[in-house]
Amino acid sequence: MRSLVLNLAVSLDGYIAGPNGEYDWCFTDADYGMTDFLKSVDTTIMGGKSYRILLEYGAPYPEFTNYVFSRTEKTSPHQNVVLVSDDIPTFVKSLKHKKGKNIWLFGGSEIIHPLIQEDVVDELMLAVHPIVLGGGVPLFKNLDERKVFRLTDSITYPSGLVQLIYKK
Amino acid sequence: MRSLVLNLAVSLDGYIAGPNGEYDWCFTDADYGMTDFLKSVDTTIMGGKSYRILLEYGAPYPEFTNYVFSRTEKTSPHQNVVLVSDDIPTFVKSLKHKKGKNIWLFGGSEIIHPLIQEDVVDELMLAVHPIVLGGGVPLFKNLDERKVFRLTDSITYPSGLVQLIYKK
Repeated sequence: MRSLVLNLAVSLDGYIAGPNGEYDWCFTDADYGMTDFLKSVDTTIMGGKSYRILLEYGAPYPEFTNYVFSRTEKTSPHQNVVLVSDDIPTFVKSLKHKKGKNIWLFGGSEIIHPLIQEDVVDELMLAVHPIVLGGGVPLFKNLDERKVFRLTDSITYPSGLVQLIYKK
Repeated sequence: MRSLVLNLAVSLDGYIAGPNGEYDWCFTDADYGMTDFLKSVDTTIMGGKSYRILLEYGAPYPEFTNYVFSRTEKTSPHQNVVLVSDDIPTFVKSLKHKKGKNIWLFGGSEIIHPLIQEDVVDELMLAVHPIVLGGGVPLFKNLDERKVFRLTDSITYPSGLVQLIYKK
């Protein structure tokens, strides 16, 4: 079965974006394992806000199939974007059973939350940045119960970024 | 000058205790560098809640001077406990200029917050546990501005705990 991998940058205080969606604090001076990661996936899952940010830079990941959960977007000019209005965990569970490479859970937190809650996320790849943002979009929201993960790797970069990799 | 060191356990979602103050999720199966750390400090800074938790186990750190910021506690049965009602950052800044070993910023978040906000914390030692608690007492609260730190070390333990060490 394909794995659903949450791979994103996070601040020391657990934010994936600043109060106005800023991600200028994310390091771009090195590859940080992204080239290898991008070879391991062929599909993304994201919410409407993440999609609209990617649109500013053109099509979202032209080499992947991009599933966008959005209440406002109904059509996309891009052939590789599939707008979805189904229940998020049900849809993603079904997608994990289809053939293909791993699935990148891209964000944001409204999409991540129900997938963490229902144990659909198989792997966390957290690029912990050495900054306290002081506010913003939190990676995790309140859950009904604790979720235990297993650390499989940690990679420390000269910039001070530490990538923590966990499996369910 | 003495350093003020924030050394504590934190969950993947940034909590230092569960919704009811639980810390049963903190690993106690190994030393995790605490023996060496305890040799480097001679003073603690904590709030009333942390103090009352420690009291359940007897005196808080008998070998240290423990400064407790509390609105409710007025006296302590323990000689090495000093109850303080001064402004937190002002008091701790002054303490850092006195002779002695480093100062352990023990918690909780109401004490940590103003000290982070006013750049009084010199070092963060975060024992990141492989668990999402889903709610609880957050390590960081909202700040007026970003705070950048410098990673000085990261230590990965077989249990999956990763200690991240940052300096200002």
